[in-house]
Amino acid sequence: MAKREKGSAYAAAGVDIDAQERALVEVRRLARTTFTPGVLSDLGLFGGLFRPDLAGLGEPVLVASADGVGTKLAVARLANDFSTVGRDLVNHCVNDILVQGARPLFFLDYVGAGALEPEKMIELLRGVAEGCRENGVALLGGETAEMPGFYQAGDYELVGFIVGIVDRARILDGRRVEAGDVLLGLPSAGLHTNGYSLARRILLEQLGLRLSDKLPGARQEKLRVGEWLLRPHRSYLAALAPLLDHPGLHALAHVTGGGLTDNVPRVLPEGLSAEIRFGSWEIPEPFRILQDKGDVELDEMFRVFNMGIGMVAVVARDALAAISGALARAGERCWPIGLVRAGDRGVVYDLGGTEGGADED
Amino acid sequence: MAKREKGSAYAAAGVDIDAQERALVEVRRLARTTFTPGVLSDLGLFGGLFRPDLAGLGEPVLVASADGVGTKLAVARLANDFSTVGRDLVNHCVNDILVQGARPLFFLDYVGAGALEPEKMIELLRGVAEGCRENGVALLGGETAEMPGFYQAGDYELVGFIVGIVDRARILDGRRVEAGDVLLGLPSAGLHTNGYSLARRILLEQLGLRLSDKLPGARQEKLRVGEWLLRPHRSYLAALAPLLDHPGLHALAHVTGGGLTDNVPRVLPEGLSAEIRFGSWEIPEPFRILQDKGDVELDEMFRVFNMGIGMVAVVARDALAAISGALARAGERCWPIGLVRAGDRGVVYDLGGTEGGADED
Repeated sequence: MAKREKGSAYAAAGVDIDAQERALVEVRRLARTTFTPGVLSDLGLFGGLFRPDLAGLGEPVLVASADGVGTKLAVARLANDFSTVGRDLVNHCVNDILVQGARPLFFLDYVGAGALEPEKMIELLRGVAEGCRENGVALLGGETAEMPGFYQAGDYELVGFIVGIVDRARILDGRRVEAGDVLLGLPSAGLHTNGYSLARRILLEQLGLRLSDKLPGARQEKLRVGEWLLRPHRSYLAALAPLLDHPGLHALAHVTGGGLTDNVPRVLPEGLSAEIRFGSWEIPEPFRILQDKGDVELDEMFRVFNMGIGMVAVVARDALAAISGALARAGERCWPIGLVRAGDRGVVYDLGGTEGGADED
Repeated sequence: MAKREKGSAYAAAGVDIDAQERALVEVRRLARTTFTPGVLSDLGLFGGLFRPDLAGLGEPVLVASADGVGTKLAVARLANDFSTVGRDLVNHCVNDILVQGARPLFFLDYVGAGALEPEKMIELLRGVAEGCRENGVALLGGETAEMPGFYQAGDYELVGFIVGIVDRARILDGRRVEAGDVLLGLPSAGLHTNGYSLARRILLEQLGLRLSDKLPGARQEKLRVGEWLLRPHRSYLAALAPLLDHPGLHALAHVTGGGLTDNVPRVLPEGLSAEIRFGSWEIPEPFRILQDKGDVELDEMFRVFNMGIGMVAVVARDALAAISGALARAGERCWPIGLVRAGDRGVVYDLGGTEGGADED
């Protein structure tokens, strides 16, 4: 790990610097397990050094994104399990630059806490390192800040920053999207990293459930509340990277805060609308339970939660078979969930399916 | 601003989305004031796009760093003034990659709060944008997370990420440092972003001072506690960038957490020690007041605070006149504060000056 300062921690404020130093040694070891050939730095430097492989790139463009895990951290704390949120963070960041056509190069993290418990710090960073290894992205650096009195005891903030690279000619920005294109939905694993404030309110406050309780009404008998809430955000890199150069892949939309309703229009040119058909994919049962038990309007459901779709690929109609086939061969499920049509930029939900709808003007 | 999601904020959790949207519009406007020719993206995309100018770089290397502002944020909150911490953050990040020889390309921020007050959000980001403009670095993106219950009302977390570029042959990493080199100290403006937990404890708790009070014992009659505590972290980019190609500039050390004692050795090869002479620069009065009033040992002072030196340049003896002269012409003060000698890697404080010393083994 190129840099990991002690932040404002020092003995005078009652911080156990030795325990923290031991944790930092382990964190640096974890970071080294993620190193790729581009990494030039190791310990003790102020910034992390990365030499990008520019071969074959006519005009290299860097793509960067910053993200947090949001109040999923509160669930991790309640479960006393910080092992998964690191993967959430890395995968979220990877997806956010993937949708512009970029392959990830390196990642940096920030961990903030009132008092860092060394074992929690290691648990968090082990997840970050796992996520980095899974995506082939180097954990190039990070910052650890101990801010007594600022964070509540036991709380950890986790922020990530990613940089990837794409050839300028291959940037995905929605410019190629046209009427008739098909929206291919790729499944999410759960809530990913959005909607936790509302989900916690419904499940933990209104219904008074504990994380170890079964999800009420779930046909999947053994599904526990905590297990479902902590399922990591998926990375779509492995499935989609081989398709980034396919001329029929017109755009990608990562379904994060704002749901399908806000995120799909981000890749639509003016004058085009996305028509999404209810019933074209099966909304996972936990979302229906949240809707029923929380008495949430359907249009709000589609703004707050991903509703089972974590990524949308906008695909030329004549490339649909090839792209679906490639995804299937990569072990990725997908469903045609709608079409691009002329209309006001936005999402129109088509009620033709099995349930009521919500309009977006 | 390439991306700025609403995080976990939505109406169901009682968040005023409209007010937040208005703030985001202003934040995006502020970001655009920082855009440099490399920026390819504007609104609405998932990641920020930056095309680095690679002309003249034989082997381009990216240098990245993540940082927070630490508990200086608590002072900002107490002063109800979030206008300066953004510059702290940018300048800290700029310095952290400058010391590896890198010029900054772009910056991303993360703002976390329990409930975002739009005017505070704008105040914070106005400072970030100012800092970016001053350093010629593009504010390429950011993330705003509203996490009710996680952050205390009125508190704001602020994290920054920076990416810069350097030619591999011009990386500064201490390899060229040798016995006989001179340590040139460049002045800090105040505490910069380190030591705030201890400084707050001494000034605000032990002495019970308010931010509007005069600093007790200061000859500078009008110096107020809050004014001194909130003085922004300086950027050394303008002064040092013209010297990055000078063969006599062997290394740079940014004096952050750990002070001179921990940061100078980071650029020393094994077998070399830094001898720093007391009395070779005037320790600014507020540090002496902290030491006296807080009854802090001198060796702790030199680990927790920068003691008036924000950056150390390690300079070949025969280049000292040229480099000092160039700094003077750039309007930057500097003092030869010590020498590199054979010895164990670390700092030895030479008591020959006007006061007692602290040894580092």
